[in-house]
Amino acid sequence: MMNYPLLITDFMLRAARYFPKKEIVSIYPGGTFRYTYADWFKRVCRLGHALGSLGIKKGDRVASFALNNHRHFELYFGVPGVGAVLHTLNIRLSPENLVYIINHAEDKMIFVDEDVCFMLEPVMDKLKTVKQYVILSQTGKMPQTKLSPVVLYDDLIGQFPDQYDFPMDVDENDPCLICYTSATTGDPKGVVYSHRGLVLHSYSVVTSIGSKENDCIMLIVPMFHANAWGAPFIGPMMGMKLVLPGRQLLDMKAICGAIAEEKATFAYGVPTIWMMLHQYLEAGGEHDFSSIRLFSSGGSAMPIHLMESFEKKYGVPMIQGYGSTETSPVVSLSVPKSYMETLPAEEQLKIKATAGLPVPGLQVRIITTEGTEARMNGRDMGEICVRGPWIAGEYYKDPETSARIFKDGWFHTGDIGTMNEEGYITLVDRVKDMIKSAGEWISSIDLENTIMQHPKVMEAAVIGIPHPKWQERPCACVVPRPEHKDAITREEIIEFLQNRVAKWWLPDEVVFMEQIPKTSVGKFSKKELRKIVFPMLEVKEFDA
Amino acid sequence: MMNYPLLITDFMLRAARYFPKKEIVSIYPGGTFRYTYADWFKRVCRLGHALGSLGIKKGDRVASFALNNHRHFELYFGVPGVGAVLHTLNIRLSPENLVYIINHAEDKMIFVDEDVCFMLEPVMDKLKTVKQYVILSQTGKMPQTKLSPVVLYDDLIGQFPDQYDFPMDVDENDPCLICYTSATTGDPKGVVYSHRGLVLHSYSVVTSIGSKENDCIMLIVPMFHANAWGAPFIGPMMGMKLVLPGRQLLDMKAICGAIAEEKATFAYGVPTIWMMLHQYLEAGGEHDFSSIRLFSSGGSAMPIHLMESFEKKYGVPMIQGYGSTETSPVVSLSVPKSYMETLPAEEQLKIKATAGLPVPGLQVRIITTEGTEARMNGRDMGEICVRGPWIAGEYYKDPETSARIFKDGWFHTGDIGTMNEEGYITLVDRVKDMIKSAGEWISSIDLENTIMQHPKVMEAAVIGIPHPKWQERPCACVVPRPEHKDAITREEIIEFLQNRVAKWWLPDEVVFMEQIPKTSVGKFSKKELRKIVFPMLEVKEFDA
Repeated sequence: MMNYPLLITDFMLRAARYFPKKEIVSIYPGGTFRYTYADWFKRVCRLGHALGSLGIKKGDRVASFALNNHRHFELYFGVPGVGAVLHTLNIRLSPENLVYIINHAEDKMIFVDEDVCFMLEPVMDKLKTVKQYVILSQTGKMPQTKLSPVVLYDDLIGQFPDQYDFPMDVDENDPCLICYTSATTGDPKGVVYSHRGLVLHSYSVVTSIGSKENDCIMLIVPMFHANAWGAPFIGPMMGMKLVLPGRQLLDMKAICGAIAEEKATFAYGVPTIWMMLHQYLEAGGEHDFSSIRLFSSGGSAMPIHLMESFEKKYGVPMIQGYGSTETSPVVSLSVPKSYMETLPAEEQLKIKATAGLPVPGLQVRIITTEGTEARMNGRDMGEICVRGPWIAGEYYKDPETSARIFKDGWFHTGDIGTMNEEGYITLVDRVKDMIKSAGEWISSIDLENTIMQHPKVMEAAVIGIPHPKWQERPCACVVPRPEHKDAITREEIIEFLQNRVAKWWLPDEVVFMEQIPKTSVGKFSKKELRKIVFPMLEVKEFDA
Repeated sequence: MMNYPLLITDFMLRAARYFPKKEIVSIYPGGTFRYTYADWFKRVCRLGHALGSLGIKKGDRVASFALNNHRHFELYFGVPGVGAVLHTLNIRLSPENLVYIINHAEDKMIFVDEDVCFMLEPVMDKLKTVKQYVILSQTGKMPQTKLSPVVLYDDLIGQFPDQYDFPMDVDENDPCLICYTSATTGDPKGVVYSHRGLVLHSYSVVTSIGSKENDCIMLIVPMFHANAWGAPFIGPMMGMKLVLPGRQLLDMKAICGAIAEEKATFAYGVPTIWMMLHQYLEAGGEHDFSSIRLFSSGGSAMPIHLMESFEKKYGVPMIQGYGSTETSPVVSLSVPKSYMETLPAEEQLKIKATAGLPVPGLQVRIITTEGTEARMNGRDMGEICVRGPWIAGEYYKDPETSARIFKDGWFHTGDIGTMNEEGYITLVDRVKDMIKSAGEWISSIDLENTIMQHPKVMEAAVIGIPHPKWQERPCACVVPRPEHKDAITREEIIEFLQNRVAKWWLPDEVVFMEQIPKTSVGKFSKKELRKIVFPMLEVKEFDA
């Protein structure tokens, strides 16, 4: 066979050649902007020239600090297209983490959404390698900013021709994107994605979800989260219409309006988004989901009652995905098998609420503490280990952590899980969040999910608190639904759990709070939670 | 990203691990045999041991001479699984071609269906490298055969354990299958398929057709035709049920019975099969296509009126594929785009009757005689050239032909075609079958398709006959439908064509015949046709 490389650039050329009329829709506070893959490609070509004019060379890192909009989508292909590496910065990172990762990646330029310039200004003096800021502006006006030197994106690319000869004699293993993990301990860690990895990830995700050209993706997951779960690549590969909701990510009225208006068939989001959407719907929010064929959730576990409500009450099937920054990110998807379609709805829902079946091309093993593979029985626990062509083999410039996490050819996820007879994974907990009580493990996630089924509860997180006799005991941190605030008791929670979990799993403490602290990607931050809860309970010593 | 190879072995392991209950159904004259991917995998493991015991080593060629049955499907993975190369022999080859390709490939063993042993016996003394024959028998009895040394497949593998540690530290570019082209001139040419190529072909085909785990493939295309169009790989990759109709390939009652019985959703076949099926249906043949969602045709052009009849009269959507042995084989599929769904049915049919849109991962260019790319306007003709990771880069042990056909990084298909504004390819003709009249080209295929729309015509082939003034002129060779035999005239054909093609395209000669000679893969053999027709017309000199 020909020695022909797998390049995401090919996806771009395919969209421009065969799907030039298909639309990309980008939603701004001032209104909806729409253009076609043909228009998009012309601007990516201009961007290619512009990057060259600014001295960007093969392998250079170029950062984006932006949400889901059409200019960001141009960067996704223009930067890798010229051989450089797009570094998608999470706009919710702490200033310390931002400085660390920009310097660690040695970013040469940063492309910044006009409305988040102010977030970079406090740290700009600490960025050692950044030579140019470029403002992604839909208003066309240069915002008041101290970032310097600075130029408007449209002015920068506007001066160049709309044709560009993207190099195709590229090694498919060359880097094209880089993303940092949202570290819960220590410094963030960089994961470098290759063309090969992202192409194969795209193929596998499309085969698993059954996406087609006639799908329209509403991308509610931020474009700085682990390659936006691959959506920016499967869109042009398949010629699918894309809807990028920009700053409207958290505005459920706008999201529902765009779903109806653009006839979206498919939406990706994290559980926090789905919870917000569900609250909006329950409050009678306007919506029309007739075009939707699937919602897909990922990033953390989706409460099963929420999936049930979306499916039964709002007629939208929902699946979950499992993965991480290190896995591009999709490892598994909770798509039921054909012969499961005859199961009772409740059983099917349980399958959709798992972390899913590994997608084609990956190998997944549950490794016990003894180093052997756990049986596929849905009970035997172990660390989830993954290998395959879109799984990271190391962290960027961090050989020590790499040696610990990527060993024997497997990525050790740090997640504890089980796999059932059918191959569906269930997450039990993070290795470090498991509660060790009397020599046994209690899964904080299981407890959380059970508590969240209580009708008065909106969110719940469980942490272990040190105990002189049992080593650790669970503490439940509960956020009541607004309408039940101050009208829910410790006893109600315990009573609710009594018939649902083992007796020794019952929390010793129940703490009510207004919100659970979250990480920059919307997961519970148990590190922050401990900082809040331990003093409340007068727990002295704790491992942060 | 990890350096993890793309291996078809991974598809097998995936099916065994995650889809052990899904069925493989194999139809024999004596009845239907069914087993699961779990059972299949155990037998592939036994086969792995057996191949080792017979001294088969990495890179050795091992041949099959068989139709579509479950033992052949075991060979598809067992032989590549141990690092050897499966050579699928076309059972319709001439004895001369058979001897040539078995010796050229240096096959060490041949696995033979019990009912076709007799076809190998006349040539066995000329096979220089074959050390062992293995009989694929469903009856369990050794047939009367002169092949020697010979053993029954089930006896051979039955003595070994049902677990095997298939090597995974394999180079993805290693060969795993080999197939020879059905040469219309010169010796057949070998195409070696790599693991990488077949894995990527599988992904791309699945994304293009939108196949899912709940599909059930009825594989009517023989398993010795260009990897059976990839079906043996996408089956286990996706965990799909497979139906292998064995010797019943040409028995339309049996095919329709199996479609209904097994609830097939998808069937692959060549136009000859679809014509036979259509005749069966028109004669009132029993059928139930309620489970079918798509018929896919390939190998040669499908008459549009037949596609129309399947769709309108029998409710089965049909698409076409284009490709060849050199392209693994899928290059393009005539799936309409979403915005074409609002076109009138007739326009949609025209799209489905094209050679299709290139699938993701390939590049296709129409190259004019001047060596430039033809415009995408549906009119400008040129040779179809293809490149990509599942396109051959050379013929096996034939550097001279390779240098001619695979040049400048492109496979030059020898097909003349156009590409329209939307990217759909239309085949005009083979370069060598184009009729050169007065310095212009006449497409024999266009003429054939037009003649085949005549209600009294079953099949038609057009060849060029030498002409003293115009260089060549078209001669139409027409097979009437049985009911119109001897009741169709030359004038009717010409009159039918008059308003449908340019005047100078009208055939000078119309010859009626009982059948058009076909190649071993069911295409019109124009070489044989010329041998028959030229003497009839007293044409003396001709280039065979």
